[in-house]
Amino acid sequence: MDMLVFENEEVHDLNLKGLKIIQSKSGFRFGMDAVLLSDFAKDMKPKLRVMDLCAGNGIISILLSGKVETTSITAVEIQEDVASLARRSVVLNGLEDKIDVLCSDLKDLDKLYTTCCFDAIVTNPPYKKLDTGLRNSSDTKFLARHEVTCSLDDVARVSSFLLRPLGALYMVHRPERLCEIISCLQRYHLEPKLLRFVQPTADKAPNLLLIKAVKQARPFLKLENTLVVYGEDGNYTQEFLDIYNK
Amino acid sequence: MDMLVFENEEVHDLNLKGLKIIQSKSGFRFGMDAVLLSDFAKDMKPKLRVMDLCAGNGIISILLSGKVETTSITAVEIQEDVASLARRSVVLNGLEDKIDVLCSDLKDLDKLYTTCCFDAIVTNPPYKKLDTGLRNSSDTKFLARHEVTCSLDDVARVSSFLLRPLGALYMVHRPERLCEIISCLQRYHLEPKLLRFVQPTADKAPNLLLIKAVKQARPFLKLENTLVVYGEDGNYTQEFLDIYNK
Repeated sequence: MDMLVFENEEVHDLNLKGLKIIQSKSGFRFGMDAVLLSDFAKDMKPKLRVMDLCAGNGIISILLSGKVETTSITAVEIQEDVASLARRSVVLNGLEDKIDVLCSDLKDLDKLYTTCCFDAIVTNPPYKKLDTGLRNSSDTKFLARHEVTCSLDDVARVSSFLLRPLGALYMVHRPERLCEIISCLQRYHLEPKLLRFVQPTADKAPNLLLIKAVKQARPFLKLENTLVVYGEDGNYTQEFLDIYNK
Repeated sequence: MDMLVFENEEVHDLNLKGLKIIQSKSGFRFGMDAVLLSDFAKDMKPKLRVMDLCAGNGIISILLSGKVETTSITAVEIQEDVASLARRSVVLNGLEDKIDVLCSDLKDLDKLYTTCCFDAIVTNPPYKKLDTGLRNSSDTKFLARHEVTCSLDDVARVSSFLLRPLGALYMVHRPERLCEIISCLQRYHLEPKLLRFVQPTADKAPNLLLIKAVKQARPFLKLENTLVVYGEDGNYTQEFLDIYNK
């Protein structure tokens, strides 16, 4: 049997049905974003064919598999070493029959798949434009955070190609790019239907947003209450704990 | 001297520098929206030429005059009886040298004014599309709440015409129309720069939004923390009281 966890890696318990994730000790590590997105996406119906774009180490696919009964999840990651990490986490969890890891540039997916063949897409894409922010020390992290290999427009275009009509895209992103997110989604007939902002505390501005867009749906946006992570006492709020622990 | 307050009307004290407003006992009455918008708009610099579109009984112009030192405020209202009410409130407050009330269809403003002649615009436009909701019993209320006489597109187009470059539009509207608001504003080169949602309580979805858009500005949206109106104890939150009492 091949080795699943290497020396520079560690296994993190996800506190969800015994699920675990392998993470590099020095590379990109999953954050709150992934946990919130997988919870936000759990409103999808069971038995769907799901794609996870910009899947990284597979954290969202693995969490989602513990929350929703999907027919299959295809996790697409462009970086070979990161895709390999995701593949080993899938094996570690015995999820080989549920989650496929595909190492591919998402811009090539229209050559690998026919249109309309997925029911739902989840994605935690790079948040930052290529021309903003400091360059991260490690290339792996830099690619995960900046739009080097794919832009928001690419994610929306490819998602629209892959989704069947009325299929849903679930995305986590940054609030300062809200205008661009909405116009990008609408450009590819992905109508924003549900939006939730996440704030660190009650008196701080949102630093994350969760958005669900449905292909070819009629326009009507529903907002959820803003999720506040920390209460006045500095501890996690009950609402946040409820998400983390289910 | 002409009579200022008629039998079917009452005078409401605004708790701000002695300012008052005349309201019809049965018609449209100002709400939280107007108070929040005038507070949101008080980040404008002093000595500006301001226009108040869809001014109704003039509540926003009058509140704003108590919060910001403007050069002039032109309050535009299409309904003659409502404009007359606004005019009498201006006289009641002795603000004739600060606030002009103009009874006009906003779609005619491009014939009355040259372009770029205002520094800031405040507006509390009708929230509802013409084809939605029950028809209100009174026509005055119906026109104030539904896009009978002007659409969101009209408000954005006219605002863009009237504003000077880098002039700001401050608007209160409904969150379910966020996508349309953003695309409408951008269509007329009004770039959303600041956005705040308002929730009744911490666990309820936002039911109002406040947005500031700047003509021909570069894209970058800042969000403010979500304003929560009522606390867990059922009383107003301190943050809300701070807005209401200043």
